[in-house]
Amino acid sequence: MNVLIYNEYLHEKEEGEAKRLYPEGIHHRLAEALLGIDDSLQFSFATLEDHAYVITEEKLRETDVLIWWGHMAHHRVEDHVVDLVCEAVNKGMGLVCLHSGHESKVFRRLMGTRCSVHWRVDYENGNIWLLDETHPLCQGVANPIRLEAEETYSEPFDVPVPDELVGITWWKGGEIFRSLCVYKRGHGKIVYFQPGHETLGSYYNDDVIRVIDNAIHYTAPSVRISELTSRYRLPEEKDVRKALYQAPEERESLVVSWDELGNGTVRYTGAEHPHTYELNVDP
Amino acid sequence: MNVLIYNEYLHEKEEGEAKRLYPEGIHHRLAEALLGIDDSLQFSFATLEDHAYVITEEKLRETDVLIWWGHMAHHRVEDHVVDLVCEAVNKGMGLVCLHSGHESKVFRRLMGTRCSVHWRVDYENGNIWLLDETHPLCQGVANPIRLEAEETYSEPFDVPVPDELVGITWWKGGEIFRSLCVYKRGHGKIVYFQPGHETLGSYYNDDVIRVIDNAIHYTAPSVRISELTSRYRLPEEKDVRKALYQAPEERESLVVSWDELGNGTVRYTGAEHPHTYELNVDP
Amino acid sequence: MNVLIYNEYLHEKEEGEAKRLYPEGIHHRLAEALLGIDDSLQFSFATLEDHAYVITEEKLRETDVLIWWGHMAHHRVEDHVVDLVCEAVNKGMGLVCLHSGHESKVFRRLMGTRCSVHWRVDYENGNIWLLDETHPLCQGVANPIRLEAEETYSEPFDVPVPDELVGITWWKGGEIFRSLCVYKRGHGKIVYFQPGHETLGSYYNDDVIRVIDNAIHYTAPSVRISELTSRYRLPEEKDVRKALYQAPEERESLVVSWDELGNGTVRYTGAEHPHTYELNVDP
Amino acid sequence: MNVLIYNEYLHEKEEGEAKRLYPEGIHHRLAEALLGIDDSLQFSFATLEDHAYVITEEKLRETDVLIWWGHMAHHRVEDHVVDLVCEAVNKGMGLVCLHSGHESKVFRRLMGTRCSVHWRVDYENGNIWLLDETHPLCQGVANPIRLEAEETYSEPFDVPVPDELVGITWWKGGEIFRSLCVYKRGHGKIVYFQPGHETLGSYYNDDVIRVIDNAIHYTAPSVRISELTSRYRLPEEKDVRKALYQAPEERESLVVSWDELGNGTVRYTGAEHPHTYELNVDP
Repeated sequence: MNVLIYNEYLHEKEEGEAKRLYPEGIHHRLAEALLGIDDSLQFSFATLEDHAYVITEEKLRETDVLIWWGHMAHHRVEDHVVDLVCEAVNKGMGLVCLHSGHESKVFRRLMGTRCSVHWRVDYENGNIWLLDETHPLCQGVANPIRLEAEETYSEPFDVPVPDELVGITWWKGGEIFRSLCVYKRGHGKIVYFQPGHETLGSYYNDDVIRVIDNAIHYTAPSVRISELTSRYRLPEEKDVRKALYQAPEERESLVVSWDELGNGTVRYTGAEHPHTYELNVDP
Repeated sequence: MNVLIYNEYLHEKEEGEAKRLYPEGIHHRLAEALLGIDDSLQFSFATLEDHAYVITEEKLRETDVLIWWGHMAHHRVEDHVVDLVCEAVNKGMGLVCLHSGHESKVFRRLMGTRCSVHWRVDYENGNIWLLDETHPLCQGVANPIRLEAEETYSEPFDVPVPDELVGITWWKGGEIFRSLCVYKRGHGKIVYFQPGHETLGSYYNDDVIRVIDNAIHYTAPSVRISELTSRYRLPEEKDVRKALYQAPEERESLVVSWDELGNGTVRYTGAEHPHTYELNVDP
Repeated sequence: MNVLIYNEYLHEKEEGEAKRLYPEGIHHRLAEALLGIDDSLQFSFATLEDHAYVITEEKLRETDVLIWWGHMAHHRVEDHVVDLVCEAVNKGMGLVCLHSGHESKVFRRLMGTRCSVHWRVDYENGNIWLLDETHPLCQGVANPIRLEAEETYSEPFDVPVPDELVGITWWKGGEIFRSLCVYKRGHGKIVYFQPGHETLGSYYNDDVIRVIDNAIHYTAPSVRISELTSRYRLPEEKDVRKALYQAPEERESLVVSWDELGNGTVRYTGAEHPHTYELNVDP
Repeated sequence: MNVLIYNEYLHEKEEGEAKRLYPEGIHHRLAEALLGIDDSLQFSFATLEDHAYVITEEKLRETDVLIWWGHMAHHRVEDHVVDLVCEAVNKGMGLVCLHSGHESKVFRRLMGTRCSVHWRVDYENGNIWLLDETHPLCQGVANPIRLEAEETYSEPFDVPVPDELVGITWWKGGEIFRSLCVYKRGHGKIVYFQPGHETLGSYYNDDVIRVIDNAIHYTAPSVRISELTSRYRLPEEKDVRKALYQAPEERESLVVSWDELGNGTVRYTGAEHPHTYELNVDP
């Protein structure tokens, strides 16, 4: 399983608590902790500094799951990278969005909302209550998960209703937060998980790490597509049409391309139908 | 709007805090409070003592919304009344299930689960966080709703995933609870709302009363059917079939009856099709 | 994986098409077909004739997934068996409900609705469209699944909104039907899948069999509980409370029993807390 | 109720069937038909030609519901208009997206997916089956809605799982399509409804018009906010915090502004708390 971790990696380079806790960066701590319990994972890394070079179309094609941690420099992530990531998720790549990543360009674009929260940093404890202990994200995890100290996020959390709401955090100061949510976008699964403030030690919490490991396996793609299916014309020829209604692996050979004028072409080459059909596609 | 309140009415007849708070019973307090803000409501009442006589098929037919409060005598509610109520909900009647009513036979049968909760009575305060302030149940209500003292219910709440999750309660002692939920069963809407322990004053809380009033309007039926549509045979005669695909008001004349051997009959009398068709129905 | 198939087994014993197609009964055909593609399965069988003896609490405890096919004798299934099955599902056992099983007592009780459909038997073809080809139920299956001839079921299908709607059938005569649905009840997963009229050969269709195999794996329990958690009192003693918030495997030792008067008792024996606590439980 | 109709208005200006059917444009036909059954509506219009001037922030602020019809010139809609519309929806404005509007920039951005469909134009008939006749979108509408001739759209429809799936279309040629869907994004409701090919007469179908009228009322805002709530810091001062937990109308005075460097400021002026607090907001 190929896991790519994007970590902004700014806080941990400045003197202070973040550096003390995560001297090599949050991404290295996550990889270390996950490898400690799961030897099926292969990690690679991207940071704000190098993200535009590391996160390429090719890199994403061989990535099963992308973990995203960002905070104060969301606006410095390049738009073409955001395009690539959102397209890769829609094609089937898994995405695990951590903590303040809820406001990243990537997550906001996939949600279609502002993704805002209310927040405090009072270093207070929280309990993450798991609503369904049989859910794959909850395997091997205590209920509730005890957070000794974490940044307080509060509802209203401005996201679409999750496809699966798995966990809700109670905060000592009076707030609650939907902290473990699953979304589907295109062929890809997305998990949002709240813990991980840079000056607090949640990534040393065994249950938190276990949930992230579960999330990697839960969002790992069962089906990847090589090109996003565009709006295409169902052919009227009866045999092509029959071919279209075949198993997914055969249909992958049906692709659509768009030229710069917005005209599209469908090319279909099936096992039983060795001809290539070119059909005009509505702009 | 005809609202029927079922209140078990046992706690309030014994000396103690419940009697002091609700001397005429929780049902009278609810009616009084709701009439104070909404003059469109007409109330009638049932209690454990008289429920088998009051809650009849006829009574339910003219009831728009049934409010249910029960606690220690769920097992004494008669099964034929439970049958009638569940059938009425499926036909379109609204149901607002309050507090410990989550374990009533009625609610459990409509859910298909055990509906258990974890609980404490520590008279502690809670905040009900509303996830979507635009929801009809939240109109005119503070967010969060402040409960000065309420019985603590905790997840896991053993219910199906709500069709709409509107509110979640934070409790001082460390728990959270999905306290405001909407379900649909057949033609009927169901709201579950947690506040209302018999020895605490939640039914004197303006926001709690407002939510109950909102719930009455939200669950009030838009469409009622006179008989539960049974599994029926789509006729092969072309004109009858066309008639079946008509507006709901015309289709109400299509009814199914079952004899004691389990054989069914469909009778259809349409405006354009004055004949009565009798079709065999699968047992 | 232990799979128990309940088949009513009445149609196939009478002379006619059902007997010709399924001479040893639908249950044997299903087992044969599933074993042909999946050697991880172990089958046992129950029929209407012996169901009251075969489907016991003990049998269900060792069953991972129950497949249910019934049609004209739903009313002859004994109520105590229905109780046991619904309880087993709530404890974690998987349930795959096929074809006319939608009107079985078991399915209706778990849904809380009438579960009625509209229907015709015109031996017409259908296409089951899969809405999400990445769903575990769709792996290795053509989209759409082509049904050469099947009984036509039509909306409105009187069930709660599915937790996951995976497939919808198009019928030649003009109807559509939500034919592949997932529900969760308690700790158990339920799949409803429409194909399987007794006089038609859907259980010889490779894609139909593949979906049933996928459904067995999808509903197989990740977590089983030995006793349904009842409404229980959260203890005020601090150390017990802490213990309650532990991993599920430890918490299984917390059980609730009810006496015949409706009084309950919680008994908790934890690893760190060797004492047994007896707490009064609200009736 | 102020309704703004955006119609691309290109097809109807060229000689042919679209012009014959909708000589003054689809927008004028929709307004005429809707006014015929609902005198509570006030219409204004935008077309591709003038959209950049008509669809301003001010115009959207006074618009209750925006209807969107576009087809071959989605790419010519200006990005700043798309920004404004998506922001207005998130603030509470209703959006009714018709037919090929599923591929508009506006709809795709709100969904986070490609929103592609498969399609044919074979002028064939369809039935829109309504899954829940009690839904506000279905009031006064036949089930199924009969479409004499419409463009065929087919699954897979690449959208997130709808918050409410209300209607599914059967097409004569073998496909089905989720044709009537509801989404929530921020404070705004979105309805997608499939009928409306420019060379076919669906906007002369009474049931289709009735659904659009229902959709206008269903998506009309109950709560509008003047500014999108940004990620803001919960104040630690106790009295401000209490103030934050007040009724929505009071909280509207809490606004957040962002400067060009990405630094934010919260300004709160409450009735009981006449001071203005300025709090740093996380970039």
